[in-house]
Amino acid sequence: MASVDAISALLESLSIIPTATVSHAPASSPATWREALEQSSSAPKPFELIKTLVYKPKTAKTATPIPLVVVAREHTDVISTVLGKKLNLKDLRLASEDLLTEFFSLDKNSLSPLVLNEHTFHNVVTVIDNTIESSSSSFAIRGLSTSSTIFLTGRELFSSLKRLETKENPLHEIDFEALKTEAPAPHATVAPAKKEKEAAKIEGAVQIAIGIKKEVDFAGWYTNVLLKADMLDYYSVSGCYILKPWSYNIWEIIQDWFNKEIRELGVQNAYFPMFVSSKVLEREKDHIEGFSPEVAWVTRAGNSDLEEPIAIRPTSETAMYPYYAKWIKSHRDLPLKLNQWNSVVRWEFKNPQPFLRTREFLWQEGHTAHLTKPEADTEVRQILELYRQVYEDLLAVPVIPGVKSEKEKFAGGLYTTTVEGFVPTSGRGIQAATSHCLGQNFSRPEMFNIVVEDPNDPTGQGKTYVWQNSWGLSTRAIGVMVMIHGDNQGLVLPPRVASIQVVIVPCGITAKTSDEQRKTINDKCEEVAQTLKKVGVKAKADLRDVYTPGFKFNDWEQKGVPLRLEIGPADIAKQQTLTVRRDTGVKAPIPLADITTSVPQLLETIHNDMFKKAQDIYFSRLKQVTKWEDIVPTLDNKCVAVIPWCEEEACEDDIKERSGRSAEPQDERAPSAGAKSLCIPFDQSRWTPIVPGQTKCPGCGKDAKRWTLFGRSY
Amino acid sequence: MASVDAISALLESLSIIPTATVSHAPASSPATWREALEQSSSAPKPFELIKTLVYKPKTAKTATPIPLVVVAREHTDVISTVLGKKLNLKDLRLASEDLLTEFFSLDKNSLSPLVLNEHTFHNVVTVIDNTIESSSSSFAIRGLSTSSTIFLTGRELFSSLKRLETKENPLHEIDFEALKTEAPAPHATVAPAKKEKEAAKIEGAVQIAIGIKKEVDFAGWYTNVLLKADMLDYYSVSGCYILKPWSYNIWEIIQDWFNKEIRELGVQNAYFPMFVSSKVLEREKDHIEGFSPEVAWVTRAGNSDLEEPIAIRPTSETAMYPYYAKWIKSHRDLPLKLNQWNSVVRWEFKNPQPFLRTREFLWQEGHTAHLTKPEADTEVRQILELYRQVYEDLLAVPVIPGVKSEKEKFAGGLYTTTVEGFVPTSGRGIQAATSHCLGQNFSRPEMFNIVVEDPNDPTGQGKTYVWQNSWGLSTRAIGVMVMIHGDNQGLVLPPRVASIQVVIVPCGITAKTSDEQRKTINDKCEEVAQTLKKVGVKAKADLRDVYTPGFKFNDWEQKGVPLRLEIGPADIAKQQTLTVRRDTGVKAPIPLADITTSVPQLLETIHNDMFKKAQDIYFSRLKQVTKWEDIVPTLDNKCVAVIPWCEEEACEDDIKERSGRSAEPQDERAPSAGAKSLCIPFDQSRWTPIVPGQTKCPGCGKDAKRWTLFGRSY
Repeated sequence: MASVDAISALLESLSIIPTATVSHAPASSPATWREALEQSSSAPKPFELIKTLVYKPKTAKTATPIPLVVVAREHTDVISTVLGKKLNLKDLRLASEDLLTEFFSLDKNSLSPLVLNEHTFHNVVTVIDNTIESSSSSFAIRGLSTSSTIFLTGRELFSSLKRLETKENPLHEIDFEALKTEAPAPHATVAPAKKEKEAAKIEGAVQIAIGIKKEVDFAGWYTNVLLKADMLDYYSVSGCYILKPWSYNIWEIIQDWFNKEIRELGVQNAYFPMFVSSKVLEREKDHIEGFSPEVAWVTRAGNSDLEEPIAIRPTSETAMYPYYAKWIKSHRDLPLKLNQWNSVVRWEFKNPQPFLRTREFLWQEGHTAHLTKPEADTEVRQILELYRQVYEDLLAVPVIPGVKSEKEKFAGGLYTTTVEGFVPTSGRGIQAATSHCLGQNFSRPEMFNIVVEDPNDPTGQGKTYVWQNSWGLSTRAIGVMVMIHGDNQGLVLPPRVASIQVVIVPCGITAKTSDEQRKTINDKCEEVAQTLKKVGVKAKADLRDVYTPGFKFNDWEQKGVPLRLEIGPADIAKQQTLTVRRDTGVKAPIPLADITTSVPQLLETIHNDMFKKAQDIYFSRLKQVTKWEDIVPTLDNKCVAVIPWCEEEACEDDIKERSGRSAEPQDERAPSAGAKSLCIPFDQSRWTPIVPGQTKCPGCGKDAKRWTLFGRSY
Repeated sequence: MASVDAISALLESLSIIPTATVSHAPASSPATWREALEQSSSAPKPFELIKTLVYKPKTAKTATPIPLVVVAREHTDVISTVLGKKLNLKDLRLASEDLLTEFFSLDKNSLSPLVLNEHTFHNVVTVIDNTIESSSSSFAIRGLSTSSTIFLTGRELFSSLKRLETKENPLHEIDFEALKTEAPAPHATVAPAKKEKEAAKIEGAVQIAIGIKKEVDFAGWYTNVLLKADMLDYYSVSGCYILKPWSYNIWEIIQDWFNKEIRELGVQNAYFPMFVSSKVLEREKDHIEGFSPEVAWVTRAGNSDLEEPIAIRPTSETAMYPYYAKWIKSHRDLPLKLNQWNSVVRWEFKNPQPFLRTREFLWQEGHTAHLTKPEADTEVRQILELYRQVYEDLLAVPVIPGVKSEKEKFAGGLYTTTVEGFVPTSGRGIQAATSHCLGQNFSRPEMFNIVVEDPNDPTGQGKTYVWQNSWGLSTRAIGVMVMIHGDNQGLVLPPRVASIQVVIVPCGITAKTSDEQRKTINDKCEEVAQTLKKVGVKAKADLRDVYTPGFKFNDWEQKGVPLRLEIGPADIAKQQTLTVRRDTGVKAPIPLADITTSVPQLLETIHNDMFKKAQDIYFSRLKQVTKWEDIVPTLDNKCVAVIPWCEEEACEDDIKERSGRSAEPQDERAPSAGAKSLCIPFDQSRWTPIVPGQTKCPGCGKDAKRWTLFGRSY
């Protein structure tokens, strides 16, 4: 098949007109194939590779398998599970070489849409990426060998397959992007959504500005802010992101603060391996059910298949507790309090979002064991209070502490406490950090059997299974902070987590300024920076001489530096500097003589104002709702419905289902459109007291127990 | 086949006498199988599961495949690559369900040695774990279904297969432990090695003491010290270990110190994802060749096969540099200096050793880009100097800074500098940390194309590919520290990295001591601890009332606490405390009035003495060797041969090969018995000056260039 003549004959038989046919050195992997084409002078450039994937669905042993052939663009994410669901094909697996040989007499690296002809098309199910037809790219397909390539336009490629379809066996055109959300693409809203995005572009926005309005295209704004503020970059593995120093340093500041606090509570840091054997992972059934669809499995090392696949931890309960059972031999070994800072992997197939939903993320996970429930309960709340402080005192993000419903609690635990955040722009709640009491669920004899003699038992014979907690805070915190404080100029950093709290920019330098004057101004800026550093302020003088002050203002505004000081000749003459707040834009001169006290004070004021502003908005969006009819309008109004709730799971399911029927067009990144319970706040005093037996749940009409936040959420 | 009668008939036909036959609920995975048996009252306990693995070697397509059946114990590591090599079978892969059905009419979870009979045995190659025959365990094998199990003695299981063998088709008895070292087990030395291990047990050693002599069974001593000092625990995934707080805190102290230093150099911390696409990983050929045999691959997430396998980073050069190319747009973006603290995975198949050779390990990796080579060169040495300080000033471990030979340099780099350590007990060198100059190898256009306009080019047209460095320090440092300072009482911690530097133990409390006296003594201990904490000494009063002072002494000695203070009634009367140094055992009273100065001073003295002692030993083992005949005796004498070397790779290969022929019995954990070049020290002044053209290399007789350390190594 490899000869050019044979290919020409084939193309002719399929009525395909190529834009080019190229012979090259054999190239098996996509990378080497691309390389070979890039080096070929006859290949049109740029081009995109087409991948041809063949899957075998699960079938009865006696039945002949019907392979699924997927023709997609190089960078299209083909998620077999979702695709299988869509096409009603069970358990799609990439086809073995044997099957490929059997069906197409080809190895996988020579596969190409060219294998489909009038005969073969009817023995397979065929899917084409629906963006191919209208794309203006030049597409490369294999010439049924690893050493020849055919170039086609999108339209040509599409038609070559389209003309093979019949009523019984259609060509499936799949929108893989929409498929990712696991819901059919809402065709009715596509056009308006597009229009909205146009409107979101900020008119006249210069190249380095954010360029998208927060209020109009929130998702687009969010990623733009992150990129332009130098917080993160996209990465070649989908769903994974690079944390650049500007964001990673925020995490380091959180780490330092939290480490100090937990050390006071007697918690010690440790490190457990990232790998978990399947045996161990699957020990707690409820627990693993919560995680297994997202577990990443290592099955091969070097060229050897592993005997048993090994999981990458999605969380470490089951990895750690066999050792807790070994280490805890007596009540004197209690409490055992360990924490680790690590990364965990949850291979989400939904649309990833930086910081909020990523396949690998950084967090800390604390795991403690106690002799009694009261001790465990106390610690759960101590840790939750630390989480509240991380959010409110470091990130200036208001949260509401409370307990999760039974449905929303941690898989396998006893109860879950949470600090619940809120993103006003999307009107969605967000779980900010959780502190779980696992009870004795993991220490029971049939689980990890973590048991000690009960020192309080008078007979001396009694045994006690330990009471356990686990608690975690992740880099999601950074994303929440960005979403809440950022504006159309870019990031707004709360001062306590900013790598640079104050930037000093020399101003008033013109073409007429002498070198000496210029030096005087620059020196003064540097002097101010040094003076501030001495009192613990993270200050930086921006003396880059190739940029204008305007460029620098913009640059540091985008990056969210809380305070700018401007110093020009007039300022020096008056022994003052102009302060410009990032959060409010307010400008005010201050005497240079006072900066060691006035600047730290101003930073405190900025923190407090940012927090107060965010809290006022959050609280204003908590709507007390007592009638069912008001719930959906409340949600659609980007608010949280606080209802007197019966706390029954069936009612929660029902609320979610019924509130999901809203007419509001779905945000394509929305993980859920129905309302779920966010938390039952510890502080119930904000709302009208519930009268037992009298106040009814607006969801089901039963007796209400506690006021509960219901909302759409991340 | 599942019925009990059918099984009985089968066993009879195979002349197998079981110890028990048990029916149970269907159990497919090893974990559920074990569970089912544990719950069965008729199963003998304890027991071990037998795993029956079937592999398919690569064969010509036309040939009938001959499966390989491996019968092994539950916890035996079956490494298919090494096994294949041993049996001369190519590319072993676990057999597909289809093949199992074809050959044995069984699924993999019902497989058992019972499938082998006079007929089937000759269609397969059979391997048995050679430890089964003599084991006294009760072995469980599948009764050819997932719901019945046969129990056999090791001897019975072995004989049932042994009697099927013929001259043409023998039963292969494999020592899987020996196989791991990838070398045939040295039968001649097995007996003496065993005897030595007996002698290594310290007579009269109490249960909590180390129990093994460092000088006799070093490997056994090492793991014992780590376990008993609470530094680490073994983990259920082979080659991975748990870092407990006692060791992890050392790492945190190193991190804090190093972070402060690199920040001064303008390095910023960041975090790149742990996953690397195969495309990216394979970009630099020399580089990937160095790592690919050890790369762990994720191929599955939840129940979906990934389209392309994704690697877990073995190091991050190729993961990071595509982004360096993107971020570095101008010479103004240089230098770019990033560092990350993370874990990397190198799936070693050799014998793992805690801290020194583990499949996952913690480290920092710095990656920087510079405009010019001199800038890169300078930084390489600045970082190396920091590494020297980590070892010498924190861990009290002497190292020799130098450059690696071409053969030993980092794969794909330009040159590698190293701080080289030495473990006197084994006489082996150890690479302690490395700082590489990558040159322009990764920035070249055909690699990552990291290029800027050259600001120094007068034409303004010139381009410069950036100069890059990478540098790393891992938790290996902790292992080296343990090996060098530890003794037969346990760990000896250098004071600057000890979580507890001083422990205060109340003494002289007897049955006659009144509660009041006891309280006085305890209070004084606590007071001393608090006083010391105030001057920054990490002090702890051990007031546990259930343990004797003797127990506590032992406990803290094992854990390596640098200094013990004893306080009894007589001490209080004299207003003094007895100091006991962990490193020397020297006891001396000091006045309590002085402790805020004398204790910190004593800790400094301990650090200096520990370092000096280790350095004296290291230097005494550096032997200047100028004749070939002296090299092997020098190595056998647990010394390093410092030779005037020609610096040619062929000569290095030759030295390694010839010195590996030593008569010394091999330590089974020895990664290499031949000598390789450890480093070419920067400071050549220690040795007789080399006369160019006159001093000859003892390896090959050519002109010597520089004095070079050659030794056995880790």
